[in-house]
Amino acid sequence: MSLKQISSFAAGQWVAPGAGARTIASAITGEPFATAGNDALDVQAMLAHARDVGGPALRRLTFHERAKMLKALAQALSERKQALYDLSFETGATQKDHLIDIDGGIGTMFVFASKGRREMPDGHVYLDGDVEQLSRNGTFLGQHVCTPLQGVAVHINAFNFPVWGMLEKLAPTLLAGVPAIVKPATNSCYVTELAVRIMLDSGILPDGALQLVSGGLGDMLDHLTCQDVVSFTGSADTAMKLRQNPVIVTNSVRFVAEQDSLNASILGPDAAPGTPEFDLFVKEVVREMTTKAGQKCTAIRRIIAPEAQVEALIAAISAKLAQTTIGDPRLDGTRMGALVSNGQKADVLAKASLIGQEAERVFGDPDAFEVIGADAEKGAFVPPMLFHCADPDAARHVHDTEAFGPVSTIMGYRDLDHAIALANRGQGSLVTSLITHDPEVARQVVMGAAAFNGRIYINDRDSMQESTGHGSPLPHMVHGGPGRAGGGEEMGGVRGVKHYMQRTALQGSPRMLATIGRKWIPGAPEIQGPAHPFTRKFGELQIGETLHTAPRTITLDDIEHFAHFTGDTFYAHMNEDAAARNPFFPGRVAHGYLLLSFAAGLFVEPNEGPVLANTGLDGLRFMKPVVAGDSIKVRLSVKQKTRRTDDYGEVRWHVTLTNQDDEKVAEYELLTMNAY
Amino acid sequence: MSLKQISSFAAGQWVAPGAGARTIASAITGEPFATAGNDALDVQAMLAHARDVGGPALRRLTFHERAKMLKALAQALSERKQALYDLSFETGATQKDHLIDIDGGIGTMFVFASKGRREMPDGHVYLDGDVEQLSRNGTFLGQHVCTPLQGVAVHINAFNFPVWGMLEKLAPTLLAGVPAIVKPATNSCYVTELAVRIMLDSGILPDGALQLVSGGLGDMLDHLTCQDVVSFTGSADTAMKLRQNPVIVTNSVRFVAEQDSLNASILGPDAAPGTPEFDLFVKEVVREMTTKAGQKCTAIRRIIAPEAQVEALIAAISAKLAQTTIGDPRLDGTRMGALVSNGQKADVLAKASLIGQEAERVFGDPDAFEVIGADAEKGAFVPPMLFHCADPDAARHVHDTEAFGPVSTIMGYRDLDHAIALANRGQGSLVTSLITHDPEVARQVVMGAAAFNGRIYINDRDSMQESTGHGSPLPHMVHGGPGRAGGGEEMGGVRGVKHYMQRTALQGSPRMLATIGRKWIPGAPEIQGPAHPFTRKFGELQIGETLHTAPRTITLDDIEHFAHFTGDTFYAHMNEDAAARNPFFPGRVAHGYLLLSFAAGLFVEPNEGPVLANTGLDGLRFMKPVVAGDSIKVRLSVKQKTRRTDDYGEVRWHVTLTNQDDEKVAEYELLTMNAY
Repeated sequence: MSLKQISSFAAGQWVAPGAGARTIASAITGEPFATAGNDALDVQAMLAHARDVGGPALRRLTFHERAKMLKALAQALSERKQALYDLSFETGATQKDHLIDIDGGIGTMFVFASKGRREMPDGHVYLDGDVEQLSRNGTFLGQHVCTPLQGVAVHINAFNFPVWGMLEKLAPTLLAGVPAIVKPATNSCYVTELAVRIMLDSGILPDGALQLVSGGLGDMLDHLTCQDVVSFTGSADTAMKLRQNPVIVTNSVRFVAEQDSLNASILGPDAAPGTPEFDLFVKEVVREMTTKAGQKCTAIRRIIAPEAQVEALIAAISAKLAQTTIGDPRLDGTRMGALVSNGQKADVLAKASLIGQEAERVFGDPDAFEVIGADAEKGAFVPPMLFHCADPDAARHVHDTEAFGPVSTIMGYRDLDHAIALANRGQGSLVTSLITHDPEVARQVVMGAAAFNGRIYINDRDSMQESTGHGSPLPHMVHGGPGRAGGGEEMGGVRGVKHYMQRTALQGSPRMLATIGRKWIPGAPEIQGPAHPFTRKFGELQIGETLHTAPRTITLDDIEHFAHFTGDTFYAHMNEDAAARNPFFPGRVAHGYLLLSFAAGLFVEPNEGPVLANTGLDGLRFMKPVVAGDSIKVRLSVKQKTRRTDDYGEVRWHVTLTNQDDEKVAEYELLTMNAY
Repeated sequence: MSLKQISSFAAGQWVAPGAGARTIASAITGEPFATAGNDALDVQAMLAHARDVGGPALRRLTFHERAKMLKALAQALSERKQALYDLSFETGATQKDHLIDIDGGIGTMFVFASKGRREMPDGHVYLDGDVEQLSRNGTFLGQHVCTPLQGVAVHINAFNFPVWGMLEKLAPTLLAGVPAIVKPATNSCYVTELAVRIMLDSGILPDGALQLVSGGLGDMLDHLTCQDVVSFTGSADTAMKLRQNPVIVTNSVRFVAEQDSLNASILGPDAAPGTPEFDLFVKEVVREMTTKAGQKCTAIRRIIAPEAQVEALIAAISAKLAQTTIGDPRLDGTRMGALVSNGQKADVLAKASLIGQEAERVFGDPDAFEVIGADAEKGAFVPPMLFHCADPDAARHVHDTEAFGPVSTIMGYRDLDHAIALANRGQGSLVTSLITHDPEVARQVVMGAAAFNGRIYINDRDSMQESTGHGSPLPHMVHGGPGRAGGGEEMGGVRGVKHYMQRTALQGSPRMLATIGRKWIPGAPEIQGPAHPFTRKFGELQIGETLHTAPRTITLDDIEHFAHFTGDTFYAHMNEDAAARNPFFPGRVAHGYLLLSFAAGLFVEPNEGPVLANTGLDGLRFMKPVVAGDSIKVRLSVKQKTRRTDDYGEVRWHVTLTNQDDEKVAEYELLTMNAY
């Protein structure tokens, strides 16, 4: 039988397996299935290609252009999903597992595409936080910015999610404007290779933006610089080795690690049998144990429950596990497939034995279990195994040995502090979940255990219909955890994009910062446009274009009239004595909304024109009260522009209201949608 | 002469020098001056004291309480400034240098105190970013939170800023709620020891919050866990050694490094002799070379100027350097003091020789210079030395050898891309400065060099009066840089506080997240208060307390009336045909400000009461147009409370306007100030 040839994609060329290639076996049959790796791969040429070709091409695009690219890539992958499913069965994964890996990965790309468009600018510089006032008169200011690293991201992925594992790293990397070299785990690299082919064939990516190493990385890491990033998912042992690489240490190469961890799930003291939470807990535990045959870095390894409920839980979990049909993942009846390889099977069994020294196996026998449609001896099959640890305080292995398969240990707790202490014995986890209906229990667990966790997942009867599962990292939320979990962070929306950018503190005059950030700042030059800015189309408006209005005097009649018309007869506007007793006002003052409304009356150009709608307002602050007899005038400046469609874009205006003494009365940012 | 005994403060006790103590010499005389260090220091007891006593005490306080503590500490130090000045001369520093170190350090504490109160909650959980919508119906949401690490921060500081170096790390650490063990460099630890005594004597800090190691750390780092942080400032060599510590690697102990770097200053192509920028550049360079005798990790080591200006610059810089009187820093006439030790002097001279292999010394002769009031041979004096490198592309040492003294190298560039390439040869810097009056030059430098820099400082005629100097890290802005600069980040306001907290992605129902974050979220339970919320004092209002108003119908008359009263006769409100042509509206619609104003009319309780003022509004979005005949009603909920003084506090209200079909019309957050 001829083996499937799994290639690398290096410096624009597909490179077939060669000297040093490794054979990959089918998880289901244990038979050789594919081959990958080539010692002659020129890793330095790959780095150079990414840095010199891919990086500059990506950096020329704006964040929005890159976001659109991600969306197109996700669509291309989506159209070829079936081919990815078909191939993925060979890794031992079921169709349900494919939904997590393949659909989950594509969904992650869509979310980053959407966040890139909604939360990042249509430009090249990401502004991180607000302007910092560094001087009394405002001639010298600060602004943090993020710009793309000028190197390459090397992604070293685990075998369990050959598609999601690549895409969850690739999406933020490309959005940042950084090229990637993807190195999947060899055991399942054939699925990754197909996904890479689909993306490259789509023609969406600029040359050099994405390369692939099927097989070993050679000495690639010895050639990294301060502009490169290594993003690693895998075992703690491998991470430790890579982290100590002298080049990585000397050049402070960014190293983002996401390692296996001993994740826990806690059943709240309120969640006794008979409550919806008890049933929910059983369901979550069983799902986490059996999905991907337990090969998930977020799977529940430790089940922490009130001592009184342990017996009932063992019974309930065991009953559900007994229904888990194991076998060839292609068969409809199969609920759980195989581990990725017989090597993994041996490792899981060895670690389960270690756990068995401290805990009793109460469900599942690796020497006696049924497999449908496949040979249990030849394929990498194991049954789900539940252990019960009677003395979790004295135990060690159950808190630090991860059997990366369908293996979990239940242990009892005396009170919530004990539960928290047991969870924290994991010394840093990707996720701890808590099933409770009591929000004060949730708060106590967060205060006690959040410092040890990258994620805390709380579920109960209110959220269970829409909850996404203990084990599912979401692109919106950070994935990673302290200590044993690697100390890294991925995803989390824009947070994940920033791992591939450098944050720089800029200091300078408003004029300098406004030009660099493409965002007007008070103190920067005001541009006098050729006409009222409301008559100017989105594409015509310049950042800094400014209108100064005539003043309008506010009368007591105005205040009275506004109060009775709107119904807002608040005492500060209506009662001179009561207003004067107020620590903030000299006497009756104009309504804030009266000022906003009059300001609009001053700056609006009424005729039909390119301004389509007032869509919102941000950061309004009233700075000085306005009393009858005062006047207000408005400065309206184009602060920022964000194209939304081919037809229109959002204009953010800086609005400042001043009184007759040029003192600031109010300041805010106004949003309008303007025709292109 | 008896030596000054410099103690450690360990587990609540002062520990005098003992076995293994080191002698510290005066920078000015070279004579032994003090002794510090004790091999018997019980570092494990110190760690336990911080973790078991200091941490819990700090975590009981809210962010605001800790911010107040910082302010009080800064005040206590401020009152004893003179004693710190008096002692600091012995390090070779001048009174001007003291202002940077001592006043700068105290100022940093004040800024963190202020930012803690303004930008962090008066609670125990910091909410990082907005709520993430993870479900269609909003029953399952995400919220990132930061909580204090439960370990200890070990601060390893450099010799050059014995006070600022401690306080810039201590302020964010304590604000986070984490205890610190401070280990100053031995050469100048006597100044740090005095500052620690002042803080401890003030009685402001809880027991265990602050400990001090004068002398060596022993094997402290071998006992750190995933809840601890090492924050290091010093040389790249030391950082590399510490980073590879197996315990630090295995436990993913956070390691924040700030290392020397080869910072550059670029003179813009526009800044020819005769411009204010040329003179400003000369001034900044000379200040950076001579302040602290050049012992600043941010000092300008590389002067990058247009080739045509190099000669004029050498002349101008040399003329100013010639005026730099060197000597005993206690003397009024002294402009530059000594290096911290004769060991440093030998190191600086050796590295200057290395630079001399590639560059010509054009100012300063270490074998012939004048020193006033001290013996040039005995004290650690060196003159400012300016080198000129004629071939900076071929050179290596000038880009990677940091002579940590008054030493800088000037080099010419051909065009701006060449200047950027030369600056980036530093392979990661704390700061690059740019003196230019052309904002497009500034943008080009940022796009090309920001990825290599933690900070970019831009200065010109507009900002020079208020600018803070190339070499001054500010508490508002991040300090640190990639690659050679260590890859770490300190300060930067709340960003710096987060280094001592764990970010955790929380997922759960709105009810759970609202309870944990002490912030109401739509979907969380609404509390029916005993009376209209505007009649309830700050202290009485509960988070989630909610008012539902009656509806009000909007008539065409209302729209007409509002338009003519305010002057806002925008076509979308006045012209049926034009409005209908607009892609967002079905026809004439009500003004957004009319809706806001009517909403206030619906929810305001008019009588004098605890609501003192409407101070602002955030995140207003109009979601659905309102036409004549529609009605609106309001839901007003207490979202968050922040005490501001003993007398009043800020209430953030969540306001939702819905129409007759219960569709959302507008949503925003309203701010009021309420009497306590």
